[in-house]
Amino acid sequence: MARPIVFLSDYGLEDEFVGVCHAVIARVAPEARVVDLAHGIPPQDVLRGALVLADAVPHAPADAVLLAVVDPGVGTPRRPVVVEAGGRLLVGPDNGLLSLAWEAAGGARRAFDISPGTEPASATFHGRDLFAPAAARLAAGAVPEELGEAVDPASLVRLEVPVAEAEPGRLRCRVVGVDRFGNAQLLAGPEDLDRAGLGDLEEIELRAAGRTVRLRRARTFGEVAEGADVLLVDSSGRLAVARNRGSAASGLGLAPGDPVVLAAPDGRG
Amino acid sequence: MARPIVFLSDYGLEDEFVGVCHAVIARVAPEARVVDLAHGIPPQDVLRGALVLADAVPHAPADAVLLAVVDPGVGTPRRPVVVEAGGRLLVGPDNGLLSLAWEAAGGARRAFDISPGTEPASATFHGRDLFAPAAARLAAGAVPEELGEAVDPASLVRLEVPVAEAEPGRLRCRVVGVDRFGNAQLLAGPEDLDRAGLGDLEEIELRAAGRTVRLRRARTFGEVAEGADVLLVDSSGRLAVARNRGSAASGLGLAPGDPVVLAAPDGRG
Amino acid sequence: MARPIVFLSDYGLEDEFVGVCHAVIARVAPEARVVDLAHGIPPQDVLRGALVLADAVPHAPADAVLLAVVDPGVGTPRRPVVVEAGGRLLVGPDNGLLSLAWEAAGGARRAFDISPGTEPASATFHGRDLFAPAAARLAAGAVPEELGEAVDPASLVRLEVPVAEAEPGRLRCRVVGVDRFGNAQLLAGPEDLDRAGLGDLEEIELRAAGRTVRLRRARTFGEVAEGADVLLVDSSGRLAVARNRGSAASGLGLAPGDPVVLAAPDGRG
Repeated sequence: MARPIVFLSDYGLEDEFVGVCHAVIARVAPEARVVDLAHGIPPQDVLRGALVLADAVPHAPADAVLLAVVDPGVGTPRRPVVVEAGGRLLVGPDNGLLSLAWEAAGGARRAFDISPGTEPASATFHGRDLFAPAAARLAAGAVPEELGEAVDPASLVRLEVPVAEAEPGRLRCRVVGVDRFGNAQLLAGPEDLDRAGLGDLEEIELRAAGRTVRLRRARTFGEVAEGADVLLVDSSGRLAVARNRGSAASGLGLAPGDPVVLAAPDGRG
Repeated sequence: MARPIVFLSDYGLEDEFVGVCHAVIARVAPEARVVDLAHGIPPQDVLRGALVLADAVPHAPADAVLLAVVDPGVGTPRRPVVVEAGGRLLVGPDNGLLSLAWEAAGGARRAFDISPGTEPASATFHGRDLFAPAAARLAAGAVPEELGEAVDPASLVRLEVPVAEAEPGRLRCRVVGVDRFGNAQLLAGPEDLDRAGLGDLEEIELRAAGRTVRLRRARTFGEVAEGADVLLVDSSGRLAVARNRGSAASGLGLAPGDPVVLAAPDGRG
Repeated sequence: MARPIVFLSDYGLEDEFVGVCHAVIARVAPEARVVDLAHGIPPQDVLRGALVLADAVPHAPADAVLLAVVDPGVGTPRRPVVVEAGGRLLVGPDNGLLSLAWEAAGGARRAFDISPGTEPASATFHGRDLFAPAAARLAAGAVPEELGEAVDPASLVRLEVPVAEAEPGRLRCRVVGVDRFGNAQLLAGPEDLDRAGLGDLEEIELRAAGRTVRLRRARTFGEVAEGADVLLVDSSGRLAVARNRGSAASGLGLAPGDPVVLAAPDGRG
């Protein structure tokens, strides 16, 4: 049986980009299942794509080919690569996008530069002309050696993930994304709260977007009254600001990239 | 062959929620086909989700597993259930979401509480951690008994669907949804028009959003002039207000939830 | 093995229209793979749908069934058809939507009117009630003769694609679409630039939406500075106005349908 392909991009679903890649895969690997992990990554947001891809690693089939395309440098000399990590194969541009995923999958064991010998059909759509065909060939049974030359995994571009800054009674971090429900995910985890000595508090102060609000610590939305705001650990293991039956992001004016401070309610800022 | 899974949720397609559920299913049931019925259900709109799911029952494969997640109570003690109806298996939260579908499928014959013995991996994403894995196991051949304890189907939560109010010459109901084309679907059918004695009229007056307009009864958009508004029976068997080559909802200011009165054109309101 | 179905529509993904068609296909042709080419075609924009479908032909499996539904005349006497072109079968309304694709596939060899003997279940959703079932039957192995009567391919509706107007030093055309990245695709190709004697220039003047800007000719976004605008040949072979790491469409105020003039930078307008 063909390996499944797990596909992430910033192509969106309004245009035909994702669909054309699927068509190409169906042509090259008619037996391969394709899982659309996410195509709503904000355009050219490599960090966000890398985080979503890495978060999905434990949930993806053990033999999956992870195809990821967030590629602001398409058509320039950035390398297209295949990376082997655990039983998985990752395909995408060498711009850091794959780096968190291969770490989550146990580290980059081997890497291959799959730059084509001849110019691809287009200079702007390597998803269609380079990455999807490569992923499809791998899904259909090709080994990475057939697609390109081995390169030193140490030469691959790695992403720097901004670290939450902890000091006693205070944690500084950023909003990394806002989901459809208005949950604002922070680039920080419960271990960062612990580092700041805030891990055991039942209420935490959020300072963001020029205002200060109290958040109750909770496991899930439904533990608080309708309309109340909570700080919870979301399904990716990150802290998130949420509102029961409402949008915390709209209510509190939070947007991706916004700096945020979490503090003890009696803390002075 | 594995059973197909028909998947509905309010997760949207911008985020990775749906994709991660697909990844989980691909891991547990690599052979199972997954049909994405709809993920644009308005966030936490259980009634809308229930209606869309029920409408799809006659069109879904006879052995389908219907996986539905619109779950404002995620992480609270609401029960996760599997319901058997006809040859179909329904998986989702016991909040009424499944109730119209099992009625459409011939009634709930058996039900199972699939609450996990141990806490699921997350308190906020039971689609990934509980419902998708359950649906995948069923698709791969498990019987519901393997997933949980039988419960009395009579104990399941049933949804109340608001009924259109008919009086001679007048029908009151609500807009239940607006689709991409601007068609405003009403929570009423042609039989309700008949009850109000309006079934045979060629024109009907619509009073909504503070204005009164005439609608021609028609079978389809193309029967009237470009820009003209019609009242038709849509593909779900409900009444809908539509505009040929335009958006009735924008043109007439109709939004989901809006109260609407249909009346004889010479009626006094 | 079943033929794959490549599915394009203007149904969008917010509603359940696409999902219900998938459910129908899963019922009729459980083995057939379905590729969602694009469902974000602007409502009832037959030309745009036809262009996207035709562009996908070279990338689709050689035995694909192309199912396309952009159908403003649904329920009126416009014919539903199956068209055979090369090894491919095209299914959709006879309103021109399929015409560019069958040309791209080598010409319409045979055509069949698949008007149903009895009224379909709905007058407004022939995707579900007519086209998806027909495509599924073809995917599962039926021959077009089983679905309807042969008609003369010369009787099929053909679309007129507006031609770019070239004169020495100037090319007039229209914006045909704007993608998620803000690239504005023009209904003109590099051969049209050549016709206007502009093919060899390194910079070209764009006059559109009441302003005049200079565009650098480039192969891809990343060849120019961040924020700079370029004119490139996109992956469909058409000219496109793009901005490196930004949206040309928002920046320059370009929208689908807008008339555009490309001229030599020293040209007088």
